[in-house]
Amino acid sequence: MPLDTTRLAAFYRDALLRDCMPFWFPRCVDTQHGGFLHCVDADGSVLDTDKSVWAQGRMSWMLLTLFNTLESRLEWLAWGESGLRFLEHHGVDRSDPLGRMYFHVTREGQPIRKRRYAYSESFTAIAYAAHARATGHAVSAERARALFDLFVKWNFTPGLMPPKYTGTRPMIGMGPRMITLVTAQELATNLGDDAMLRSWRDRCIEEIEKLFVRPELQCVMENVAPDGSLVDHFDGRLLNPGHAMEAAWFIMQEGALRRESRFVELGCKMLDWMWARGWDAEHGGIFYYRDAAGKPVQEYWHDMKFWWPHDEALIATLMAWRLTGEPRYAEWHERVRLWSFEHFADAQHGEWFGYLNRDGSRSTTTKGNLWKSFFHHPRALWMCHGMLAAEAPPA
Amino acid sequence: MPLDTTRLAAFYRDALLRDCMPFWFPRCVDTQHGGFLHCVDADGSVLDTDKSVWAQGRMSWMLLTLFNTLESRLEWLAWGESGLRFLEHHGVDRSDPLGRMYFHVTREGQPIRKRRYAYSESFTAIAYAAHARATGHAVSAERARALFDLFVKWNFTPGLMPPKYTGTRPMIGMGPRMITLVTAQELATNLGDDAMLRSWRDRCIEEIEKLFVRPELQCVMENVAPDGSLVDHFDGRLLNPGHAMEAAWFIMQEGALRRESRFVELGCKMLDWMWARGWDAEHGGIFYYRDAAGKPVQEYWHDMKFWWPHDEALIATLMAWRLTGEPRYAEWHERVRLWSFEHFADAQHGEWFGYLNRDGSRSTTTKGNLWKSFFHHPRALWMCHGMLAAEAPPA
Repeated sequence: MPLDTTRLAAFYRDALLRDCMPFWFPRCVDTQHGGFLHCVDADGSVLDTDKSVWAQGRMSWMLLTLFNTLESRLEWLAWGESGLRFLEHHGVDRSDPLGRMYFHVTREGQPIRKRRYAYSESFTAIAYAAHARATGHAVSAERARALFDLFVKWNFTPGLMPPKYTGTRPMIGMGPRMITLVTAQELATNLGDDAMLRSWRDRCIEEIEKLFVRPELQCVMENVAPDGSLVDHFDGRLLNPGHAMEAAWFIMQEGALRRESRFVELGCKMLDWMWARGWDAEHGGIFYYRDAAGKPVQEYWHDMKFWWPHDEALIATLMAWRLTGEPRYAEWHERVRLWSFEHFADAQHGEWFGYLNRDGSRSTTTKGNLWKSFFHHPRALWMCHGMLAAEAPPA
Repeated sequence: MPLDTTRLAAFYRDALLRDCMPFWFPRCVDTQHGGFLHCVDADGSVLDTDKSVWAQGRMSWMLLTLFNTLESRLEWLAWGESGLRFLEHHGVDRSDPLGRMYFHVTREGQPIRKRRYAYSESFTAIAYAAHARATGHAVSAERARALFDLFVKWNFTPGLMPPKYTGTRPMIGMGPRMITLVTAQELATNLGDDAMLRSWRDRCIEEIEKLFVRPELQCVMENVAPDGSLVDHFDGRLLNPGHAMEAAWFIMQEGALRRESRFVELGCKMLDWMWARGWDAEHGGIFYYRDAAGKPVQEYWHDMKFWWPHDEALIATLMAWRLTGEPRYAEWHERVRLWSFEHFADAQHGEWFGYLNRDGSRSTTTKGNLWKSFFHHPRALWMCHGMLAAEAPPA
C-alpha cells in the first residue's frame, strides 16, 4: 500500500496550522509574565497557572523550528523568544554551582520543584539552538552548547546525579542516551555539526544497540544493569513501546543524515519489535507499558493510550517507509494515523486529547498539563508534513 | 434496610479465613530469607522477589492481630515473627543517625530504596505492638514506642524531613495525621493507652478537622497550605475519596473507643461528603482521585477502581451504621460490598485483584506488588467480621 504523499502532506500541514497551532496560540502566551500557560482543558481554559520548565523549552523550540523551516512568521519568533526570556529569568537555579535548572515553577517564575534529572536543560538547549539559527545570535548558540555540555556531564559523569536507589542493584536507562542523541542532532542541524556532537551521537547509538536492543527477546529494554544484563524485576522488565519507537526514529534520522544504512536498519528493527509489542490488536492504539516477559506491569496506567506514543509512531512508521519503501511501514502508518485521529482528535476545539483508556474512551478532557504541551503532537505533524512534502511533486 | 448481621459476620469470616488467608499463606512465607514474598500474580506465583518494607510490617501486624483477636493459631504467630525478624535484620538503615528504615529491599534484605517519608516506621511500629500483646515481650513494646516516636518526630518537627518541593508554596498532607492517629490507636490498644498517645490522637483529629475537612466545599482535602488555605492547583485540588473514608473510620473508631460523639459525627460527615464525591454513579465503585472543583485530575489513574478504597469503604460504612443506625450507611455498605465482590474477587484462586478500569474490567491480574499485600483486604474482612460478630446473637 503506497501512501498518497501529496494528500497526506496537506493533511499534516492542515492539522498543524489549522487545528493544533490555533488551539494553543495566541491564548497560551502569558503576556503578563512571559512564557506559556500550558495546563489547559479541552476548550483551552487554564486548569493550572503553574509552568513546566520542560514545556517552556519544548514550546519555544517548536515555535522557533517552525519559524526556521516552515514559514518565517514573526509572531512565532516573538512567542518563542517570550519562552526563552522566561527560562533565562526563571528557569535556572542561581544557587546551583553547575547552573542546573528547575522542573516546575509558578506562573510568576518562583521555583516549585527541581528534579534529579536534567531534561529541563536538554529541552532548553534545543530551544536556544533553534533561536540561534532563527536570529544568528551568538549568545543563544553559546547557551545551547553550554546546556548540552551540562546535560551530558550530569548524565554521564559517574556519581554526579544523586541516585534514586541504593547501589545494590544499579540500572541505567535508555532515556538519557536517546535524549543526548536527539539533542546533539538538533545542535548539529542548527549550529553546525562537529566532532564532539558526532562522537556523542555515535556513543549513544552504540550504547542503545549494545545494551538496550535485545535480539534474544526481540525487544528494546528501558532499563538494564550497567553491563547490559537483564534485571528480572518489575522495573527491569518494563517496556515502553512509544519511547522505543521514538528512539528508533532518532536513530533512523541519524542514518538519513549521515547516509549510514546500518543506523536505518537498527531503527527499523527497533520499530518492528516494538510495534509487535506495543500495538493493541484488540482495541487498537499503542499500550503505554508492556512487560518483556508478558507478566503484569506494576505501573497503573500501563494499558492506557497516551497521545505521545501515537505521535512518535506516526513519525517512526513514516520515516521507516520513506527510508526503506517497505509496504508494512506504510500500512502501520495509516493504521496508527486513522486510529489516533479518530480517538484523540477534538473536532470541536482542535488539538488532541492527551489520555484515553485502553478501549479508546476518553479518560480526561485535558489538553495540556505538566507533561503535555505544544510539543509531541505538533512535532509529529511537522515531521510528517516535512517528510511527505519532500516526497511530493511540487504543487 | 437493616443488615443481616449474623449472615454477614459469617460472610466476612469465611472471606478472611477461606478465601484471602489461604491465597497468601503459607506460600508467601520466605522460608529461606524470612519475611514475605508478596509481589504475586493471580495464582500466587511470584512476579518479583523484592520486598516492600511496608508490606513486611503490615503483613506481620495483620497476622499478629488475627492471632490476638480471632484465633490463637501458632502458625500465625510464627509467620508474623518471621516478618519482624526480617525487618529487624534488614529493615533499618544502620547508617542513619535516627535509625530510619528502608522502603524497598531485595529478597535477601539488601537495600534498594529509602524514601523521604516514614511509613515503613509506622507500619513496623504497629507490628511490634501486636507482637508485644501476643507474647508479652517488653522489647517489642519498646521497639513499637521507639518507632512511633521516630515517626512523629520525623513528620512533625519542622525542617527534619527533606522537602520534595521548594518553600515557594508549601503544602501539608492529611496522610501523616491519619497514620499518626491510627498508629497511636494501635499502640493504645495493644500496649495500653497513655496521655502521650491520647494527645497525639487529639492533635491529629483536631488538625484534620481544622485544616482538611472543608464545609464550604463539602469535602475532605488531601493537601492544603499550612494555614489551611486552599491551593488552587492540580495538587491542591486533589481529592482521594478512599483515603478520606479511611481517615473517617479512624476518627469514628476514636469516637467509639472514647465514647466521644463529636468524633463519630465528624467521621460520618467526612464519609457522607466523600461518598458523594467518590462513588461512580455510572459504573459503580469508588474513583481513585477527584478534583475538588470538578476539573480534570492530572494523575493518570484517577478514574481506576483500586481494591483498597473499596476495603476502606466497607469498614467506614459499616462502622457508621453500627455507631449511628442510619439506614443509608447499611445501604452504602451493601452497595460497595456487592460491587466489590462482584468485580475484585477471583473465584478461581481467591483474594481480590488489585486494579480495575473505571468500567470494572480488570487492568491486570496482579494480586500483590510493592503496594498491595496482605493488609487492606484482610483488615477490612477482619474489621467487618468483628463489628458484626459483636452485634450478632451468640451462635
